[in-house]
Amino acid sequence: MTAHPTANGSRDGTVLTSPPADAPIDRATAQARRLVEALLRTDRTRGDLAAVADELGRIADQLEAHAPDVSDRLIDMWQGEGVTRHDPVTGPENVLAPPLVIHGRADGSVDATVTLGLPYQGPPGHVHGGVSALLLDHVLGVANAWAGHSGMTAQLSVRYRRPTPLFESLTVRARVEEVDGRKIRTTGEITTANGDACVTVDALFVTAMLPRPR
Amino acid sequence: MTAHPTANGSRDGTVLTSPPADAPIDRATAQARRLVEALLRTDRTRGDLAAVADELGRIADQLEAHAPDVSDRLIDMWQGEGVTRHDPVTGPENVLAPPLVIHGRADGSVDATVTLGLPYQGPPGHVHGGVSALLLDHVLGVANAWAGHSGMTAQLSVRYRRPTPLFESLTVRARVEEVDGRKIRTTGEITTANGDACVTVDALFVTAMLPRPR
Repeated sequence: MTAHPTANGSRDGTVLTSPPADAPIDRATAQARRLVEALLRTDRTRGDLAAVADELGRIADQLEAHAPDVSDRLIDMWQGEGVTRHDPVTGPENVLAPPLVIHGRADGSVDATVTLGLPYQGPPGHVHGGVSALLLDHVLGVANAWAGHSGMTAQLSVRYRRPTPLFESLTVRARVEEVDGRKIRTTGEITTANGDACVTVDALFVTAMLPRPR
Repeated sequence: MTAHPTANGSRDGTVLTSPPADAPIDRATAQARRLVEALLRTDRTRGDLAAVADELGRIADQLEAHAPDVSDRLIDMWQGEGVTRHDPVTGPENVLAPPLVIHGRADGSVDATVTLGLPYQGPPGHVHGGVSALLLDHVLGVANAWAGHSGMTAQLSVRYRRPTPLFESLTVRARVEEVDGRKIRTTGEITTANGDACVTVDALFVTAMLPRPR
């Protein structure tokens, strides 16, 4: 992994998340994502779900049997200074991540386009408000890095303006508005393809980072 | 499913989320959760990850082949007036959910205890700030129902007071503070076992619900 690219000196459209790869772990994660959705979609009355539970348990056993201590895995995960591959929003190794692919723009903003399915549902047919907050918090953090001012979230104020639809292309966008000493003010929004703002956010970050495990 | 229980007329400790069940779909979902964690934990250099990807893909194919149209599944998911089994925070049928089991208290508050692992990581060894926002948003919504004032999130203000640890027991707590016409003000927090407040939230909900699919 390499250091975070910044708007100052990188080209418009720079990918700021882990590049999609064909590594076996990425492929296994992508198939597990299909499985999460399929478990919500499939007929719950069919006969072979018990067998599916057993098969999944056996695969988990097998993976756990070859897992290093969590302290060793943490050191490995956090090696290098680049973007993570394991976070729950963009990580190609994290099944929970949709995953978002975030681009840096020449005007200093960052954006990602995503379509969310049933696992992310809150109100009927719509995105869970907490999921919108999760995606925005992460994209704001990436906007900070793109502006050269990484930090940790101190305050996140999310406004829900209209329900955010599932099964439609959404754009998550963020930019740094102001830097004052250690304080970074960053805003963002989730919009539909026709430009309606569903969720907006105004957040404060502070330039502090937790130490990486060694 | 039955109507939401409320503090007025239910006993202290009432479980407000879907009761844990031994249904095959719940067991398959629980095993898939183990798999999500195991994929983050396992040795990435081992030889059989490609075979795991193929096996997971085959199981997903099999589940998808028996999936009704998404519009039919949505109707089925939203039948009845009780708690959902598919949401990304408490749903026993949603792999993304830790899942939280939320209890209603006689004093009008609700709480859940949970320990989060690697899939929920943000900063090294700590919970992703957006995940904290997701859990709080949901638990606040359940607090509203317990108080008899269900609504949709209009504004969520989250304050991060100290990093929230992974691998430790956390309590997520919420209560309705004030109801003014259609506006519901609800607060909440995430605390460690020794009582440190890591994240606090102050939110505004409005009494409006999206129609259930039919």
